[in-house]
Amino acid sequence: MPAMPVEFWFEFASTYSYLAAQRIESLARPAGIPVIWRPFLLGPVFLSLGWNDSPFNIYPPKGRYMWRDLARLCAKYGLPFRVPSQFPRNGLHAARVTLAAANEPWLPDFVRAVLRANFGEDRDISQPAVIQEILSELGVAPELWLEGATREEIKTALRRQTERATELGIFGAPTFLVGSEMFWGNDRLEDALAWAIQPQPPG
Amino acid sequence: MPAMPVEFWFEFASTYSYLAAQRIESLARPAGIPVIWRPFLLGPVFLSLGWNDSPFNIYPPKGRYMWRDLARLCAKYGLPFRVPSQFPRNGLHAARVTLAAANEPWLPDFVRAVLRANFGEDRDISQPAVIQEILSELGVAPELWLEGATREEIKTALRRQTERATELGIFGAPTFLVGSEMFWGNDRLEDALAWAIQPQPPG
Repeated sequence: MPAMPVEFWFEFASTYSYLAAQRIESLARPAGIPVIWRPFLLGPVFLSLGWNDSPFNIYPPKGRYMWRDLARLCAKYGLPFRVPSQFPRNGLHAARVTLAAANEPWLPDFVRAVLRANFGEDRDISQPAVIQEILSELGVAPELWLEGATREEIKTALRRQTERATELGIFGAPTFLVGSEMFWGNDRLEDALAWAIQPQPPG
Repeated sequence: MPAMPVEFWFEFASTYSYLAAQRIESLARPAGIPVIWRPFLLGPVFLSLGWNDSPFNIYPPKGRYMWRDLARLCAKYGLPFRVPSQFPRNGLHAARVTLAAANEPWLPDFVRAVLRANFGEDRDISQPAVIQEILSELGVAPELWLEGATREEIKTALRRQTERATELGIFGAPTFLVGSEMFWGNDRLEDALAWAIQPQPPG
């Protein structure tokens, strides 16, 4: 039975999206599971739940715990980590570039590099200049892709994808979709991949 | 180096406390890790965060996802599961009995039985009559322990323990404490136990 594709819904401002983005391909590829990268914006999703900021900022005990948890998990996974001097940072430009470059072979590298810049290097990924630097570091034409990301069809595509997230019942990031089966959080990455190989109804 | 004890902070109304309670001893015992059972009430903790109900009820997309996630995880762990006809159910009486019976050898069995009654058998654990049935099923004197649970010192101890949860920065259940290191959620049980054996600062 061929593996089902896994849709990886993520946001560049999301700490646990950082962990999942660094891990997903190395786990999915050996199992022959296709990964579909789905950037979206958490802001409108959170607004639909009544939050005008990250819940990690709205609820300080959750936030304090999250940063400690993230430090521990980055140590466990061997990922660079620095508490960012701003949180959350607007992932709009990075998300638009991701949609514009959907078919480029360097796309996963770009996503990982932006998330690492945000949470491993404390760089301000909300700034087009930083996205431009990252594109340059990947060896792709930064002006071309930044320019392409401002096209009206790309702006519309990101709005639609964010609306779709809410319609699907997504309430946080990362979220993995395998067919209609939803898995929330970096902690569920392994379960999502297992589902893609052998869907099983719960007992 | 001897293992550090793990404090298991749980609430009888908490779905993921059900999973952790069924799993913790079988993982901790072979590793020689002592488990300290810490019942508390999430209601006052949630109120301090501005929630007058379970966040799974306040935020419907989170709630819908949680029930599906719980069904999948119960299937994975081989635990009985039925969506309860009431949620959340008040864990006050069960928590008081747990504190009164802190030194009894049947305490872990009691905690597991009450959580299984709530989430595996759809029994109304908020009712003293149901707690009495569960104590009887365990072969311990139900009237004695229900009576003991109404002592003023037990009521006070549960209030203090719940206040202590907020002071410690606990914002949900289950939470595991290993020394001052906090781990939140059934998903972190393995990490908490690993920390108890070999404390490691993050890299």
